[in-house]
Amino acid sequence: MGTVLGVGRVTSRTPVLRIRGSQHSTRPDTVAAEEPLEIRLAGTPLAVTMRTPGADFDLVHGFLATEGVIAGHDDVAGLRYCDSVDADGRNTYNVVDVDLAPGVPIPDTGLERNFYTSSSCGVCGKASIDAIRTKTSFDVRADPARVPLEVLLALPDRLRAEQQVFEKTGGLHAAGLFSAAGELSALREDVGRHNAVDKVVGDAVRAGRLPLAGHVLMVSGRASFELTQKAAMAGIPVLAAVSAPSSLAVELAREVGITLVGFLRGDGCNVYTHTERIVLPD
Amino acid sequence: MGTVLGVGRVTSRTPVLRIRGSQHSTRPDTVAAEEPLEIRLAGTPLAVTMRTPGADFDLVHGFLATEGVIAGHDDVAGLRYCDSVDADGRNTYNVVDVDLAPGVPIPDTGLERNFYTSSSCGVCGKASIDAIRTKTSFDVRADPARVPLEVLLALPDRLRAEQQVFEKTGGLHAAGLFSAAGELSALREDVGRHNAVDKVVGDAVRAGRLPLAGHVLMVSGRASFELTQKAAMAGIPVLAAVSAPSSLAVELAREVGITLVGFLRGDGCNVYTHTERIVLPD
Repeated sequence: MGTVLGVGRVTSRTPVLRIRGSQHSTRPDTVAAEEPLEIRLAGTPLAVTMRTPGADFDLVHGFLATEGVIAGHDDVAGLRYCDSVDADGRNTYNVVDVDLAPGVPIPDTGLERNFYTSSSCGVCGKASIDAIRTKTSFDVRADPARVPLEVLLALPDRLRAEQQVFEKTGGLHAAGLFSAAGELSALREDVGRHNAVDKVVGDAVRAGRLPLAGHVLMVSGRASFELTQKAAMAGIPVLAAVSAPSSLAVELAREVGITLVGFLRGDGCNVYTHTERIVLPD
Repeated sequence: MGTVLGVGRVTSRTPVLRIRGSQHSTRPDTVAAEEPLEIRLAGTPLAVTMRTPGADFDLVHGFLATEGVIAGHDDVAGLRYCDSVDADGRNTYNVVDVDLAPGVPIPDTGLERNFYTSSSCGVCGKASIDAIRTKTSFDVRADPARVPLEVLLALPDRLRAEQQVFEKTGGLHAAGLFSAAGELSALREDVGRHNAVDKVVGDAVRAGRLPLAGHVLMVSGRASFELTQKAAMAGIPVLAAVSAPSSLAVELAREVGITLVGFLRGDGCNVYTHTERIVLPD
């Protein structure tokens, strides 16, 4: 399988037997690249996530911020790709080592279990909701942001229009950060929705822009507990998803003060929590 | 938010502001339940996954089998829900403790990092593909299964027709296990695709049916590295997905001998690896 370096290893070419009705042919096809990224703190492995290569330093900053390891850009003294090599001796660019700033505590190994959190919450039921409430230092509930309905309804088309890789592969999730007036702040694509969100948040972390008060985070796919947790940790008051939310996403959004929007498509949506932020037309 | 006990906590009811065009109304809506499940071995926490409650013992068996902790049903001496309680003193049914059979090694804490794998591979790049090749004891490559194209093309409708919760909530992924002749063996739904697969595999583990030679695993959504890994660990020779595969899913399927089918919808599909198992019409 060849790797397309020109677009940052975000796609690969592979032969495919293509079948459509009575026609079939073998030809090259483009698939979304998926590779592991190992995040280390001062040389000690912290977490591994399967991700689309690219924007890796954004991903690392966003992951560390939404997991509560860092509060902002100043907590990172430096980061670099390690000398991990593949069978041919080439750097894989799949391992990033982070030096935290002096005084920022390195999480102990007990934290490891929290990093199951790539697709889970790390702790049990109500306890995890309590944990996020104590962990996030931002008062999302007090965010006075108001989003006109017409702005909200326009976001899915904005997201899709900006997606670069999806059209080629059909294989990527996207996360977009918008102002309450609908201006695009950042968009990232990834094979994992949580990575796309971490990349968008990490971009803001590196620019010193946390908390992301007054912003809307729009995601393709569903709204899970995990994505809601990440929005809370970044101080984002509105989370909008193309598909359905889960029960725990609704519960967490209600508790921390996030406006959770689901089924945002066409001329409608469902607003599950804190509906006061959505401004309906007269 | 009320929990619908009658359908095993797989859905919850919550009020929602529903907006469609110029109409809006507040009314109760059904969302897919998402709750954490903590898996313990002899009382020691091993992993936490966010899942749809229900078929939890299937999930545990499937998780342990696809992660290489158990080889089959006989390796589990017993399992039970722990006495985890919520704020009202009710059992949450969110913690399951497993006793392994005598002689089955309890993975050491070094294994913890492998269980980041809920949405990642736990190790780096090529190493992880090597790891799965040594870990799985089944020779998937030698599986002589042949699947007629018309059987393959009929699977998405079969999957959707059997989905119980998706129609209510729009929020669940599904995994279905079929024979090469298209007979449904098991179907499970979950907020997490990997959990749906673990539940289907775990059902087979409990029935002593591993390896699942001659079977087709059909999943909603994308085909990731992780799902391909799970198929390999269960000895399943054909993995079919409604959406796109990732590059590492293609690479792993090619290496271990799995036929990987993507974009299986309507009258067509793409076959990425081991096309010899798909029998085209004359």
